[in-house]
Formats: sequence, structure tokens, C-alpha cells
Amino acid sequence: MQMGMIGLGRMGANMVRRLVRAGHDCVVFDVSARAVEALERDKAVGAGSLQELVRGLRKPRAVWIMVPAAVVDRTIAELLPDLERGDILVDGGNSYYVDDLRRARELAPKGIHYVDVGTSGGVWGVDRGYCQMIGGEEAVVSHLDPIFAALAPDIASAPRTPGREARGGTAEHGYLHCGPSGAGHFVKMVHNGIEYGLMAAYAEGLNILRGASAGKRRRDVDAETTPLRDPEHYQYQFDLADVAELWRRGSVVGSWLLDLTAGALLEDPELERFGGRVADSGEGRWTIHASVDEGVPSPVLTAALYQRFSSRGEADFADKVLCALRHAFGGHEEKKP
Amino acid sequence: MQMGMIGLGRMGANMVRRLVRAGHDCVVFDVSARAVEALERDKAVGAGSLQELVRGLRKPRAVWIMVPAAVVDRTIAELLPDLERGDILVDGGNSYYVDDLRRARELAPKGIHYVDVGTSGGVWGVDRGYCQMIGGEEAVVSHLDPIFAALAPDIASAPRTPGREARGGTAEHGYLHCGPSGAGHFVKMVHNGIEYGLMAAYAEGLNILRGASAGKRRRDVDAETTPLRDPEHYQYQFDLADVAELWRRGSVVGSWLLDLTAGALLEDPELERFGGRVADSGEGRWTIHASVDEGVPSPVLTAALYQRFSSRGEADFADKVLCALRHAFGGHEEKKP
Amino acid sequence: MQMGMIGLGRMGANMVRRLVRAGHDCVVFDVSARAVEALERDKAVGAGSLQELVRGLRKPRAVWIMVPAAVVDRTIAELLPDLERGDILVDGGNSYYVDDLRRARELAPKGIHYVDVGTSGGVWGVDRGYCQMIGGEEAVVSHLDPIFAALAPDIASAPRTPGREARGGTAEHGYLHCGPSGAGHFVKMVHNGIEYGLMAAYAEGLNILRGASAGKRRRDVDAETTPLRDPEHYQYQFDLADVAELWRRGSVVGSWLLDLTAGALLEDPELERFGGRVADSGEGRWTIHASVDEGVPSPVLTAALYQRFSSRGEADFADKVLCALRHAFGGHEEKKP
Amino acid sequence: MQMGMIGLGRMGANMVRRLVRAGHDCVVFDVSARAVEALERDKAVGAGSLQELVRGLRKPRAVWIMVPAAVVDRTIAELLPDLERGDILVDGGNSYYVDDLRRARELAPKGIHYVDVGTSGGVWGVDRGYCQMIGGEEAVVSHLDPIFAALAPDIASAPRTPGREARGGTAEHGYLHCGPSGAGHFVKMVHNGIEYGLMAAYAEGLNILRGASAGKRRRDVDAETTPLRDPEHYQYQFDLADVAELWRRGSVVGSWLLDLTAGALLEDPELERFGGRVADSGEGRWTIHASVDEGVPSPVLTAALYQRFSSRGEADFADKVLCALRHAFGGHEEKKP
Repeated sequence: MQMGMIGLGRMGANMVRRLVRAGHDCVVFDVSARAVEALERDKAVGAGSLQELVRGLRKPRAVWIMVPAAVVDRTIAELLPDLERGDILVDGGNSYYVDDLRRARELAPKGIHYVDVGTSGGVWGVDRGYCQMIGGEEAVVSHLDPIFAALAPDIASAPRTPGREARGGTAEHGYLHCGPSGAGHFVKMVHNGIEYGLMAAYAEGLNILRGASAGKRRRDVDAETTPLRDPEHYQYQFDLADVAELWRRGSVVGSWLLDLTAGALLEDPELERFGGRVADSGEGRWTIHASVDEGVPSPVLTAALYQRFSSRGEADFADKVLCALRHAFGGHEEKKP
Repeated sequence: MQMGMIGLGRMGANMVRRLVRAGHDCVVFDVSARAVEALERDKAVGAGSLQELVRGLRKPRAVWIMVPAAVVDRTIAELLPDLERGDILVDGGNSYYVDDLRRARELAPKGIHYVDVGTSGGVWGVDRGYCQMIGGEEAVVSHLDPIFAALAPDIASAPRTPGREARGGTAEHGYLHCGPSGAGHFVKMVHNGIEYGLMAAYAEGLNILRGASAGKRRRDVDAETTPLRDPEHYQYQFDLADVAELWRRGSVVGSWLLDLTAGALLEDPELERFGGRVADSGEGRWTIHASVDEGVPSPVLTAALYQRFSSRGEADFADKVLCALRHAFGGHEEKKP
Repeated sequence: MQMGMIGLGRMGANMVRRLVRAGHDCVVFDVSARAVEALERDKAVGAGSLQELVRGLRKPRAVWIMVPAAVVDRTIAELLPDLERGDILVDGGNSYYVDDLRRARELAPKGIHYVDVGTSGGVWGVDRGYCQMIGGEEAVVSHLDPIFAALAPDIASAPRTPGREARGGTAEHGYLHCGPSGAGHFVKMVHNGIEYGLMAAYAEGLNILRGASAGKRRRDVDAETTPLRDPEHYQYQFDLADVAELWRRGSVVGSWLLDLTAGALLEDPELERFGGRVADSGEGRWTIHASVDEGVPSPVLTAALYQRFSSRGEADFADKVLCALRHAFGGHEEKKP
Repeated sequence: MQMGMIGLGRMGANMVRRLVRAGHDCVVFDVSARAVEALERDKAVGAGSLQELVRGLRKPRAVWIMVPAAVVDRTIAELLPDLERGDILVDGGNSYYVDDLRRARELAPKGIHYVDVGTSGGVWGVDRGYCQMIGGEEAVVSHLDPIFAALAPDIASAPRTPGREARGGTAEHGYLHCGPSGAGHFVKMVHNGIEYGLMAAYAEGLNILRGASAGKRRRDVDAETTPLRDPEHYQYQFDLADVAELWRRGSVVGSWLLDLTAGALLEDPELERFGGRVADSGEGRWTIHASVDEGVPSPVLTAALYQRFSSRGEADFADKVLCALRHAFGGHEEKKP
């Protein structure tokens, strides 16, 4: 099958490679000519402009857009004059599903089909395959099945769920038509919300293990906290890289994120190369918006998001209010670090 | 009535003044001779040692200990040789109620009565009165009633709760025999747990008001967070001192803590003199221990406590784990502040 | 001054009464003729329709809309044909501030001024006064000052904040021009967010006090939780009504909400007339949306909101997932209540 | 090697089977004679009493205790008279590490070695192997290495962490000597704390996906919540079993717990056989105690624990306080379900 790919960053470029390997034809464009050239060497057909890319595709055309969420609308606007009724646009980036709903509504009268695909896999996807959460019209999604199948991981990459044989479907192949427009990015959004929660669970647990030496620290110099009642209970010095490795086999908390944690701690046990300012990329926030709108509680996912805000100093003013109040009612002077 | 007072810090000294004003006799001791002299000028009888204090009291003696929780046991041990059957020890500091249980059990065979009093009021108590939460034997607590009454606030300091006339009791006078040994400090512990929650509620709300100018900040230089979808919704510049003042009258969120907040913000609108490292003093932690032991959820009180931990950098390692994982699966480099 | 009032529910009717008492003229309308009649007895001028209300007002007219947020737009649409350039609309209900921004933008070309007022005070406001958070154009807000002043509480209802004399302004009178359109409802929104947090802090603390008898319960019949290690630490039976009353005087946690708590517990110590399904009214949710949009953490306010969701069974499916997982990995059968 | 096993429940019995399969000799005892007989059929040597079990072992004896945490101390007390200097006791259950510290201290003067092993693996361990977190004396742990190795999973059950070859050690074999006494159960405790967090992250995410049909529900009959602003954004009906299956391959959130989730949802999509009362077994609580003692924040792990408390109705009284307050200040009547 043939696919146009716009945006050849970490994700887009590797997806093209995986498609080409599977025998598909790819016409590719990026604002960086070097990115285009790199993929030409990998057997994709380079295009010098969006127009050239469109012209290089057979009808009905299928164009996969893999650009930052902020430039998707502009990219679509630039493509539109060259597209025709029946063509298909796929947004495989990290768009807010509410934008998908709007885009599908705007493109429908023009006869252009819009498909939203939440794509997970990160830098590992080129070998591991990409988990794809898909929203859009049934027939259009079916039409693109060979593309999704090629990008998806191998079914053998996880043991089969007992009872799945009877059910069939593409879910166990790592891609799924989740519902109408926006469904793909909605599921991806929640996926990332969960990801934040999982990451925070490991991070907090490791931090508690690390704190298990608290009883060894002298406390009399630190009057801002209450002294440990039982310092003899906190005399451990755990090797966190070993513990993370240990849990990878046979335990209940095994996961791909734990695999990565074990690797990161092995390489840099104190994680000294990291400063601890944690970014957040949109989906985590949108997940909380959905949770609140639906009236469904998500204390764990929200705590995980807020920890990221705090890591960037966004709680500082609130903390100062607490210091000011402690000073006001108790005459407490703040202790210096 | 007569009372010995050991520990003449911010709390103890002012309590003696309030007792003296009410006509009670106070014999006082502190490791600082200057603190003793200062109270002698305020008509208390100074003692040069614990022994001298004990000798200055009529039997059955009543001794109020107002020292840091960490030295209560030592103080009791030093007093013991001079005390006699029937004497009363009051721990009015911030002891863990579990220690009260132990002390009462240890002192009982010696015929010495132990009373635990959680005392709230801070530096304002000398004029406002002290709210006292009391644990111990019924008869002993009754015996000390004149002392508690003198330390307590005026009933007129709050409007009477409708229906209270029929009920009577000392609660509306600002002191209460809450139950057997430890009951006073248990109630004080939870009181402080609530205090943390209330403080955090105001602090977070004010921080959100402060963030209402987010739409004015340029975001393109800050790639670590998702851009605001609707910057035009966040164009406000609120005067927080005015808002806090406003809420003090007629609103649902009025409180003494809000009064203090309004004062602090009036004096220093950006709270620049505070660094934002928030101490925590034991009761907040013990409240969470009780919550967990009882199996009773306390998400708000716990979040408030954890925010204090975070304000002191105790989440830093967890944050680094998150950075390391983001780097591992997505190749994300951390943004610098 | 003259004011039209639309909506004579609990809030609107009492506000008219307070305005009339202060010597203002009120023309009033409600879809319920009986509500109109009741206020006519209290010296307001009744109107049989929106048109009649408008005709009863001198120019420039000032109309205060006090209806459910969901019908504000419809009410404005019905009023519009009869309004003229220079007239003023006040939305004193619980609108989302984003709607204020839109309405002000839509009404501006017609020369009609829009003022948003967040009003706190509940059923007590008629006597206690209403705390008013105001957004809109400076000149228009100034013009309405006599109305705001009459509705506001007495400055004597709270002790003056030290240093306020030098500052002046209306904040200490219980009303404040917070900023341009939407500012009033933004501040009211956060006010309610804080209110949720404060309420939850008291509720959790009281629940922990109530759980302090946990050691008395037999545990061997309850295999779904770990046994208490130290049942002797949880043998208290606190009188919560007395404790709440106690804290009202001299303590750090005193507040108007605590006053109400003391009253509610005095009347019904086990709160048996309540089922525990807690509603939430919009502002709490919008506060969290703002927090997330701004990237400012609000763990306490959010936990308070989520607890309300949970109280209505909205966590049930998540809980079933946990049961299913426990069963899947550990063979744990769920314990029946 | 030879090992005595006391306690032949789900875990103990399967561990014996795994040891026997690996060629080790097992002498086994359980209070249930049928449990002993079942294992005799699987080539273990049955014992009719603790004494008989001890007599059946060669010196220095090694006895693995796999009984509920509440009866470990009693079991050790009954074994003691028959043990001799140099014998080894292994507690492989879910003891609190603080008890390990005490036991090791008590047994040391008798020359009896105490080893604590946190064991993860659940009902799947017999085939998958058991992840073992071990605390105790270096030499004793080394002596038992063949046992740990036999119980542990196969190294091939997870891909090797890059760089591990150079490091060596047993961690990648699924067992690890974590430190001195208590270290094994400490690490297991935190492991379970993390497990609670991971489970909650999936549960909350799935609940949000399930709530994505919120816009389809009629809301006018439900006045206790604010109406959805954009019901058209919540019109999805996701197949949760398919989504969970989908995420198992190629996504960032893949894990063993997700594998189980996919299986559970496939079997019973609405999880109707579960009531949603979630038990908690000690380690989750102890993790929070450690977090609070260390002053290390764990908002995610704690939220996960509290959700379990709430699922069992433990927030009900707090919820009633909220209802009572809403009624008190706003005259709000509670809505019935």
C-alpha cells in the first residue's frame, strides 16, 4: 500500500522505516531537507514540498501527519487545496481529541476522511512496533488496515490472553479501531494519564526505599522536622538498581517501565545527570479534565500530574503562604536548607 | 489555685501571665534564668531548680510541664524523686498520645496522676486564651478546673451554638475533658492535622488565583509544558491581599487562619521574606499514622502533609526517576529552568 | 438607588429584602407569581414579566439576574429587546467565568454593560450580609457601589486587619472589584474550591476521631483488613459535638464552617439524617480545570472534589477492577460486607 | 539441599512443588493433614507435627515458615525447644519488617539464624517462579542460595538489561539479598505499596474510559451534579477488554498487571461478579507509615491505599459531615440516589 508521511522526527522517520521494511511505498516530507534525504537512503520517496508529496500519491490518497500538535491545523490547511474527495488524512501525533472532533466535522463536507491515531512506542517503536489507538469511520479504518498492521508489534511480543482465540479482532495485534472520530486520541490520552500514574508509583516507591537510611542521618541539626521515633527501623542502604532488576522477574510489579527503570538505575545509580524538573505533555492534563467533566475520581492519576507541576516549582507560592501562616500564628521562623 | 510551671518559652511564659492575671499562684522554672526573672517581674514566684519548684508547691502539688516533646520524659524523671503520692503532672506540650499512655501507666503505681493537655493558641493565646484538649482521670481533671478555666478563652469570643444552653459543659468555654489518658493529645493531634489541611486549602486557592495571569506569559520559550489552549481565559492579575481581606466577611470560607492570611499578604504581597520550606511538627504525621491504622481515609490531610515534605526537596529523587524514565522511553531531554 | 431583580429563590429574595431595608427601590420578577407576591409584602415592586420589570426601571437601568447558571443566557436573550445602550446587567449567580467573558464580548457592541458578581453567604446572608466578588468595567462597578455596599456585611463583623487603615478600599467591607469581566466569578470559583478543601479537612479529621475506637471492635471476623498492631492505642470514644464546639474558641482551626459543624453535630451526633451522597456544584470542578490549565498543583482541593465523586459511587467500577486483579494474581476472593 | 516447610496454603504448597521438581528434599507440615497428604503425593516427606518435622531435618536445619503473619511468632515459639544453635528459620510470609528486627534480636543469643524473605508471585509462582527479597546475615543467605535459586524465575523470563552482564549478581535471577534483618520484608512492603499504585492507575484510567459515554446520559434528572458543558465530547462507548488487550503490545503501559486486567475484562466485561470492596493486606499501610516516618512524600501510593478504605465505606461518616455542612450553610437537601 502507499502512504504519504509528513513529519520525519523521532517517531515519523522510524514509522516510515517500519512501513518500508514491510513492503509499503512511502512518500515523505519534512521541513528539514536532511530528514527527507535520510529517509530516501532508506528507500522512501522524498518530496520537496507538501504539494509534491500529494502529487506523488495515488488516489484515494492517504497522508499520515506526524507533527507537533500545535502545527497540525496549519499542515491540514496547507494540504487542503491539493486534496480531493475521498482522500484520507491521518493525524498520528498527540492531538487533543476535541480537535479531532472539530477537524472531522470541518473536513466531512469536503469528502475528506479524517482518522486519528494515538501512537505509543517512543524511540523503541521501530523495532518493537507501535501500539495504535484509532478513531474514525469504519470503512476508512478498514481500508488502512495493512498500514496499521505493518506498524503494529508482533502478536508474539506478549503471551496470548486465555480466551482471546474465540474473540479475534486486531486488539491483540497491537492496533484497534476504538470508535468514531476522536476515539483514538481519547484512548491515547487516558493511556498517557495511566503512564503518569505508573511512573509515579515506581518513583515514589524507590524514593521510600532510598529514605530507608533516614535513621542514620543526624537529626539534631534539623529542627524543621520531628525526630524519628525509631531510628533503628531506618538503617537500610538499598541498592536500587538491584531492587529494580530483581522485580523484573516473577513479581507482581513487572512492566516495561520497570525494565527501563532498571536500566536507568544501572547506568546512573543516583540519577545525577537529571535535575528533577519533570515536563508534562498535554495528555496527562487532558485526562484530568475528562475525569473532572465525567465526575469520575482519579486521585492517583491527578497526584502524579501535580507532582510534575511541583517538580517545576509551581507550588512555591503556596509553600510561602504556609510559611507565612506558621510565622503568623506560631512565631515560627523558617529553617534554612 | 497554685500551679508549678516548667518551661517558660513562648507558650509557657504567656500561660503563666494569664494564670497570674486570673489570680492564681505560679511557681516557675526554666533552664534560662533570664526567662525566670522575666516572669518574676510579672508576679510569678521563680525557682532556681526543679527541686526548688517542687518544694515551693503545696500538696497535692500540680506541675504543668511545657517543654519540647523530646525532653518531657527526662523532665519527669528528674521531678519524680521529689514528688509524692497524690501529686499531679500535666504535660501541656505537643507529646505523642502514645507516650501519654505509657507515662500514665508508669506513674500510676507511684500514685502520681498524669494529665495530658493539647494546647492551641500560639503566640496569640495570652490575650485570646488557650483552647485546651484534656486527657486523664475524671477527678483529677475536675480538681484542675480553675486552672483550665483561667487559661481558656472567653465564651463570648464566639457566638453561642444554638441549642448549647441545654447541653452545658465546658466545651463552649474552650476546654474539654476529652477522655482517659492520651485523649487530650489525640484530639490535639487531629486538630493539627486539620490545621494542615485548612492551611493548604487556602494556599492552593491563592496559588491558583495567582496563576490566573498564565495567559500573559510567553509560552514559546517554555517547551516543557503544553501550551495553554485558551490564553485569553487567563489574563487576570488579582490582588491577593484584597481577596483574602474580602473573604473575611460574609463568606463561607471565613476563619481565623484567613484573618492571618489577610494580614500576612497585606504586609508582604509576594511573601518575599519566606523561602517556602515548610516545617512539620509531628502531629500532622501522627494524624496520618492514626488514619492508616484505623483504615479511615484522609486524602486531604495527607496531601497537605506531603506538600510540606515536597517543599523541603524530599520528592527530588522521585522526580529524577521520572526524568530518567521520560528520557529512556521517549528520548526526552530535560528542560532547564 | 434602583435595582431590578430577576430570580427570587433563596438568594435573590433575601438580597432584595436586604436592599429594601437599606432604602433601595427594587423591582422584582420571578417565574413564580407567589415569590413575587411575597416580596411585594416586603415593599418591593412586583413585575408580571421581564418586560414589565424593564419598563419599571429608570435609565440607565440596572438589572440583577439571580437565576440558575443554566438559564442565564436565555434570560439575557429575553431581556435584550427591551434594554438600551447604557443599561447594566449583573449576573449574581454561579456562572462559569468563561461565560462572562463571552457575554461581555457579545453585549459590548450593543452598549450594554455586563457585571459578574460571585456572591457568598448562603441562607444566612440576609442577616450576615453577602460577600461579593465583582468583575467588570471600573466605571460601571463604581456606579453600582451603593447596591454592593448595602448587600455587603458590616465591617464590624470581623476585627480589622492591622495595617488596613492605611490601605482603605472596599475589601474590608465585604465586596471588591476584582478585575475585568469574569474576575468576580473567577474569584468566587476559587473561593468555592477552597470551601471544598476546608470542609473535607474537618470531615476527615472528625472521621479519624470517630475511628479512634477501632481497637474496641473485634477484628477476627474481618479478614479483609490487616489487624491493628496496637489495639490499646485506639480505645477512645470521643464526643464529636463537644470537640467541634471546643475548637471554636482559642484554637487555630476556628472558622464559620466549624461553627456550623458544631451546630450540626449537636443536633444529630451521628448525622443519621444524612446519607452521605455529596453533591458538587460546578465551581469545585472549574477550580480544578483552572489549576490544571495553569499548571499549578492543587492536591488538597482536588482530593476534596474527588471524595465527593466517590461518595456518589463514581469509583465503583475502578474498585471492581481492583477486586478483579486481586482475584487474578492472588486468588483473593472478595469479602462480603 | 534439604528444607522444612511449615504452612502448605496456596503459596507454601506450590513452593514445595517447585523445590521438589528442582531436586531438593522437602519435609512438610500443615495444621491440615489433607494438605500434608497432598504434598506427599508430590514427593515431599510429610510430618505429623512440628517436632516430627524438625526431627526429619539434617543439621544445620533450615525451616521455611509460610504461615499468616499473625501466627509466625507462635510458630517460632513452638519450634524453639527443638531447634539447636546453627539452625536457620526463614519467614517467607508477609511479616512486618519491624517484627523481623525483633525476632532476629531475640534469636541471636540462642545461635539461631533468622532470614526474612518477601515472596511475590501469587498463585502463578509455581510455574512462573517466585521473586524473592531477602534479609539476614550474609553467610546464612549464601548457604540457602540453592533454595532461593530453585524457587526463583528463569532469567530468560525477561530480556536482559543492557549492561547487566558486567555487573552479575543474583538480582537478574529473581532473588536478591537486600540487606540485614528486615531488609527483605522492607523491600517487599514497598513492592506491594507500588503494586497498589499501579493497580489504581489502571483502574482509574479504565473508569475514565468507561465514563466517556457521560454525554449520552440524560442529566436533567440528576440535579446533584453540574451539567456537562460539552456533552458532545463524551459520546464514546469503549470496549475496555479490547483496549486493555491493545495496550499489552508496543505501548508504554504494558505490564503483567495489565495482562491480568485484559484477561479479567475479557471474561467479565462489566466485572459483575465483583462487588468493589477492596481489601488491603498490611504492606500498603506499612509503606505509608515508612513514607511518613522518613518524611518522603508518596501521594500516589497513599491515594491508592485510601481508595481501598473508601471502597469499604470508611469515608461514609466524613461524607455525612459534608452533607450536613452543605445543608447548614446553603439549605441544600441531599439528592437521593
